[in-house]
Amino acid sequence: MEETIAEIGELALIERLKAFCPAGVVGDDAALMRAQPGYELAVTTDMLTEGVHFSDRTTPPYSVGWRAIVANLSDLAAMGAAPLGVTLSLGLPKQTPWAWIEELYQGISDCLENYGGVIYGGDLCRCSHRVLSITALGEVRPEQAIYRHTATAGMSVMVTGPHGGSRAGLAVLLEELQFDRTAEYVQAWIKAHQRPVPRFDAIAALHRLAEQETTYPVIAGMDSSDGLANALLQMSSSSGVGMDVVRSHIPLPPGLSDTVGSETALDWALYGGEDFELVLCLSPELAQKFMQTGFATVIGITTNTGIVQIFPSKESHSGTPITHKSFQHF
Amino acid sequence: MEETIAEIGELALIERLKAFCPAGVVGDDAALMRAQPGYELAVTTDMLTEGVHFSDRTTPPYSVGWRAIVANLSDLAAMGAAPLGVTLSLGLPKQTPWAWIEELYQGISDCLENYGGVIYGGDLCRCSHRVLSITALGEVRPEQAIYRHTATAGMSVMVTGPHGGSRAGLAVLLEELQFDRTAEYVQAWIKAHQRPVPRFDAIAALHRLAEQETTYPVIAGMDSSDGLANALLQMSSSSGVGMDVVRSHIPLPPGLSDTVGSETALDWALYGGEDFELVLCLSPELAQKFMQTGFATVIGITTNTGIVQIFPSKESHSGTPITHKSFQHF
Repeated sequence: MEETIAEIGELALIERLKAFCPAGVVGDDAALMRAQPGYELAVTTDMLTEGVHFSDRTTPPYSVGWRAIVANLSDLAAMGAAPLGVTLSLGLPKQTPWAWIEELYQGISDCLENYGGVIYGGDLCRCSHRVLSITALGEVRPEQAIYRHTATAGMSVMVTGPHGGSRAGLAVLLEELQFDRTAEYVQAWIKAHQRPVPRFDAIAALHRLAEQETTYPVIAGMDSSDGLANALLQMSSSSGVGMDVVRSHIPLPPGLSDTVGSETALDWALYGGEDFELVLCLSPELAQKFMQTGFATVIGITTNTGIVQIFPSKESHSGTPITHKSFQHF
Repeated sequence: MEETIAEIGELALIERLKAFCPAGVVGDDAALMRAQPGYELAVTTDMLTEGVHFSDRTTPPYSVGWRAIVANLSDLAAMGAAPLGVTLSLGLPKQTPWAWIEELYQGISDCLENYGGVIYGGDLCRCSHRVLSITALGEVRPEQAIYRHTATAGMSVMVTGPHGGSRAGLAVLLEELQFDRTAEYVQAWIKAHQRPVPRFDAIAALHRLAEQETTYPVIAGMDSSDGLANALLQMSSSSGVGMDVVRSHIPLPPGLSDTVGSETALDWALYGGEDFELVLCLSPELAQKFMQTGFATVIGITTNTGIVQIFPSKESHSGTPITHKSFQHF
């Protein structure tokens, strides 16, 4: 029989979970930490619930933990910040197996070890569903902070990677379509869904380029956790700019168009969500340099039309407005 | 008919909730903030679930919000920190009335206005239960931080107020016993349960006294959110000290002993929880000065026995060990 948390009891469970936290950080009513002098703190929070954000069918507990951390770290990356640590709150049914929590924490722990940050503590409580709430803290120099509202017309719009892979991975796991699971590209989609990557690497490369300019350049941006279309629309709305996006420039995961058709591939790229790439607006000059690093690619330009449109190719003159079609919880 | 959040939709709901946040703070992937130079950040988190931490029967939504904030702010006070702000994650069923959320946010907002701090943003998601997760950030000078592990034998053990009032208020609301609800002291118990107070006032007074000493004195402490007994036992265990507590010195809410009897009153004081007072260990000299401010009272001393005992009066020689009997979620 599997050992459940009801059998372990809350106090013993907390002791087991403390093993995942750095010594000396937890054990008080609050954890103490600080950013480097001259840095601001970036704070972000995400709640994930069973049946909405994850299920045993598509996401083993290790991946639930990994993805939950990435969802938060990706928000830090999108602000231009480096990770410091997280707090974790867990709502759990009594019959939850200890093995499930242990694997969840292993995924959390491994992800933090890979991308930086420690566990500053958390809270446990009983809940009919499994619920996970994470708050992440990062640090950023004020002049390097990336906002959604600072794009202006004439900037290049860039993405740090392909979109639609996470949605494709989910389709494989849900057996929505028949896929050859042994194919390397299908494995890559599953990995995109279960083990996404926060793009601190791209941000670091961009910071290095930006620091070479006389004054630190304006970079607008956000992550594409709620879909590429949502990111484009949010930035357009916050900045008061339009965007002309070239459909053929949007990078798609290998094998996707060939397998599901180009219309579905585009739909998943725009609306699938949870790719955790960054969508950035910056000067065309800096964009060219950034593109040469291989960390990002230009998919369009910002305009003064106020409308976010997609064009089939760079040469075409008739664009189609991109609309909100993202997942809504309510 | 009441308007539900399913009718409003997630995006419109977020817009309504933004009205509770300071302008310019929310709207990006993360919020930026900073502590004063030379201060450390204190971070703490709490999750509250319907049916465990609150129910419509005992806690109107305004109080759910107020108490959730106090639970977190109290942890900051217990670290000696001043509040800066909070992040909020809400898991909600689709049929949740907008009025419930609006009142919840009003309670949150009013509490923050009273004791300090802003909303740094949050997250919304669908959940079968109402779940609320809050992370609070505060700031504290490193030398003024209060920990659980720094008590040594020979210190005074103090509490900042009466214990058992929140549990008594719950008993009234649950109609566990027959009470005269019009009595002023019964109203005070209900208030203790629904509108607790984080003790920043006591901490500020203690800091003022402590700053007068040549070197900043060691003050150990934590809050009594999980009951007075739990606080005494946790500090005893963290610090490796015993404690001799005098039963007659533990302040009880007016009317409690007379109404429920002295045994139940003591049980509720020790194990009721959620009084959100502070339990502090400090030098007898500083304790005397602190007691004169009226913000705290001495209930015992720390010893080198390793055992937490309760004595009927200051003169008695036979103590009874205090044991863990706190609420466990699992």
